[in-house]
Amino acid sequence: MTKAGRRAGESGTREAILRAARDQFADCGYDGATIRAIAAAAGVDPALVHHFYGTKERLFAAAMQLPVVPSEAITAALADAARSPDETVGHYLVSAALALWDSEELRGSFQALLRSALTSEQAAVMLREFLSEAILRPVASVADDTDPASTPFRASLVASHMLGLALTRYVLRFGPVAAASAEELAAAIGPTIDRYLTGDLR
Amino acid sequence: MTKAGRRAGESGTREAILRAARDQFADCGYDGATIRAIAAAAGVDPALVHHFYGTKERLFAAAMQLPVVPSEAITAALADAARSPDETVGHYLVSAALALWDSEELRGSFQALLRSALTSEQAAVMLREFLSEAILRPVASVADDTDPASTPFRASLVASHMLGLALTRYVLRFGPVAAASAEELAAAIGPTIDRYLTGDLR
Repeated sequence: MTKAGRRAGESGTREAILRAARDQFADCGYDGATIRAIAAAAGVDPALVHHFYGTKERLFAAAMQLPVVPSEAITAALADAARSPDETVGHYLVSAALALWDSEELRGSFQALLRSALTSEQAAVMLREFLSEAILRPVASVADDTDPASTPFRASLVASHMLGLALTRYVLRFGPVAAASAEELAAAIGPTIDRYLTGDLR
Repeated sequence: MTKAGRRAGESGTREAILRAARDQFADCGYDGATIRAIAAAAGVDPALVHHFYGTKERLFAAAMQLPVVPSEAITAALADAARSPDETVGHYLVSAALALWDSEELRGSFQALLRSALTSEQAAVMLREFLSEAILRPVASVADDTDPASTPFRASLVASHMLGLALTRYVLRFGPVAAASAEELAAAIGPTIDRYLTGDLR
């Protein structure tokens, strides 16, 4: 087999895995889908799926053509914030999200995900479960830990605001939220995210 | 003509107006559509459209089956806030929105609007123009007036957060934002809205 032939073989295998993943996520939800079942449907060994994609979240991100693996992007922003304490965690999170969304082809994949969630209850369940998993874990690591019971509420407030920002800026392209620079938005919205993470919510 | 016959005639006329309105809003956007043109397409006098619906915004809300006329709901919440200064404007706005959304059939109409905005650039333009009109005017009345140039940015931050809240609570039904009481959400999100309206955003 030539080198090009081998590459074509690998890309065919990857495509089969991603196709099987999309089916499994749609049929079983994010929580219900397993790498083992996806591998079986694609006719490959689970170890190969792990080798190509690592985690279920990364496989989901690849299958849905997300420009970013959310929990990794959030964790990276948190690490940046820890290194340079000039800006708050909220400011870093908003900046990091906008840097990714502004530069990558978010719009297509985000619209496709949202459109399917709006059209199909199954897709809404899948997206909801994925967001819980992808956002809750990293956010929990910086949320107020004196009251761990509040962490899911804090994380879902953050998710709600960030989804609204993406919807308004990229899909509706509504007014100044669409025209503003990432820096203006980070300055305006960052303190909100900080309050949702660690402030008094009552 | 019997009374029932007269009623059926009126409801047929209203239906023709709403159908013509949906077409016009889709074809010309919210800004481009006129009551005159909608009346002409429905084969009625513009005065009748004014008589039935009052304003272009009310006609749009009726045509799109929105459970509420946004600028009127916002204005009412602002009046409530002015009467009972125990709670802030932001708290009242969030409470009023949730009271409407929780009780009415928001989900269907909101999903339909969003779905069309995600599917068609034309529908996105229409929704964007409508939101500018319906949210900007009442929000401008309570935003920080020492810097009027910031008002559109302030209004679009409010719109972005409220859209995200509606999307997360009603469409995705994501985690605790879906399960929380209106009071908890108003307490958590109200101060954000206050800051977007009148706080320091830099």
